[in-house]
Amino acid sequence: MDLCKKSLPVRGKYKDIAEKKCCREDGHEGECGEFSYLSDLSTTHPRVANKIKRDATKTTGAAWKSEDAGPNRIDRWVMLQSDEVLLQYGLNMAALKPGVVAKLREKAATYDDCMEVAAKLTWLAYQMPDAPECPPTIKKYLESRFSPMVASATTCIVCKEPLSFSLFENAQRGKAEIETAHSNPREHNQTNVGFAHRECNIAQGNKTLEEFYEWISGILDRVQP
Amino acid sequence: MDLCKKSLPVRGKYKDIAEKKCCREDGHEGECGEFSYLSDLSTTHPRVANKIKRDATKTTGAAWKSEDAGPNRIDRWVMLQSDEVLLQYGLNMAALKPGVVAKLREKAATYDDCMEVAAKLTWLAYQMPDAPECPPTIKKYLESRFSPMVASATTCIVCKEPLSFSLFENAQRGKAEIETAHSNPREHNQTNVGFAHRECNIAQGNKTLEEFYEWISGILDRVQP
Repeated sequence: MDLCKKSLPVRGKYKDIAEKKCCREDGHEGECGEFSYLSDLSTTHPRVANKIKRDATKTTGAAWKSEDAGPNRIDRWVMLQSDEVLLQYGLNMAALKPGVVAKLREKAATYDDCMEVAAKLTWLAYQMPDAPECPPTIKKYLESRFSPMVASATTCIVCKEPLSFSLFENAQRGKAEIETAHSNPREHNQTNVGFAHRECNIAQGNKTLEEFYEWISGILDRVQP
Repeated sequence: MDLCKKSLPVRGKYKDIAEKKCCREDGHEGECGEFSYLSDLSTTHPRVANKIKRDATKTTGAAWKSEDAGPNRIDRWVMLQSDEVLLQYGLNMAALKPGVVAKLREKAATYDDCMEVAAKLTWLAYQMPDAPECPPTIKKYLESRFSPMVASATTCIVCKEPLSFSLFENAQRGKAEIETAHSNPREHNQTNVGFAHRECNIAQGNKTLEEFYEWISGILDRVQP
């Protein structure tokens, strides 16, 4: 499916190095919109819709606030810019701890990849066992961008067990039980992204899924010879 | 081996609900001491000696400081006291978040268990492949408390790979690459404690090792049918 991709107005500190495009179908009627396919979830499950937008487009950053902790939740595409450019926008990367810089740079992704990720995550969320019903127009839109939806098809990308939509609302110690996860944690694009149980995502760490399976297979070989 | 166990003076805020005992052999000559078997490591590798003492005796607590984050690194045996008693010492458990309380209470352990854990960890550290040589008197002491030391015998309790002593000094983003780990994370005693790679300890999470191996075995069954 071709998207409209008309540029939309950008606000905020980084507006000169950011972009926003209409994600609706090329030739659509009515207003342009960046996340039109999230209109239903935004009403029925605003926390889920916000999580999808946030995880798709923002870096994480440090949990604490301090001089050297760096910016929390900055647009991923801003992190594609050089230190020199970022300094012009008041972000002094050289003043941050190397670990923080590495973590921020690792999350860098193009605007287009982030937008594809958001749509993919929405498509996946609607295929969870107890997901709300997907309105026909949104279903048609998402299916033409990806492939036909199959009820209950969405599993944790790490452990391959079904993922219940209700886990989005469950939180332990302030952390949701579902996290956005990556087959390769250093690539943020739609083919590489999915949902995972929080504990699975943590166990995977910064390994690719392939490395993770190899690693746990080696552990079991040593434990059960 | 029988220990001296003579009470030693206790200082600090919680001194009335704390204890300190001599860990030297019963009938020893010279001064009493709580961690005499760490005298060598305290000189040659003070960070390792301090880590062993800290991990054996202290809770972790929150990484940040705030009203409801609770005390950071409090003696584990203090956490055996009731909310009422702790309140008398100025620690209002009821004011902490439930998750913080659970985390603190989970780390509770008797003084004796903590002291056994410290000795066991020292015994394990000296059996790492590139560990410093253990002075004969300390070796004799630790071997009579546990069992004969075997060079390079200490492995990660999770992945069973050898653990290099040099990893104590390696740190990524301020976190040492070796952590004190527990076969059952809710029991702090010498039979249940060991060292693990940081990534292994994180992957294990709050599962027992048995649960962890069962869990990863299930994952592999689903991934490679």
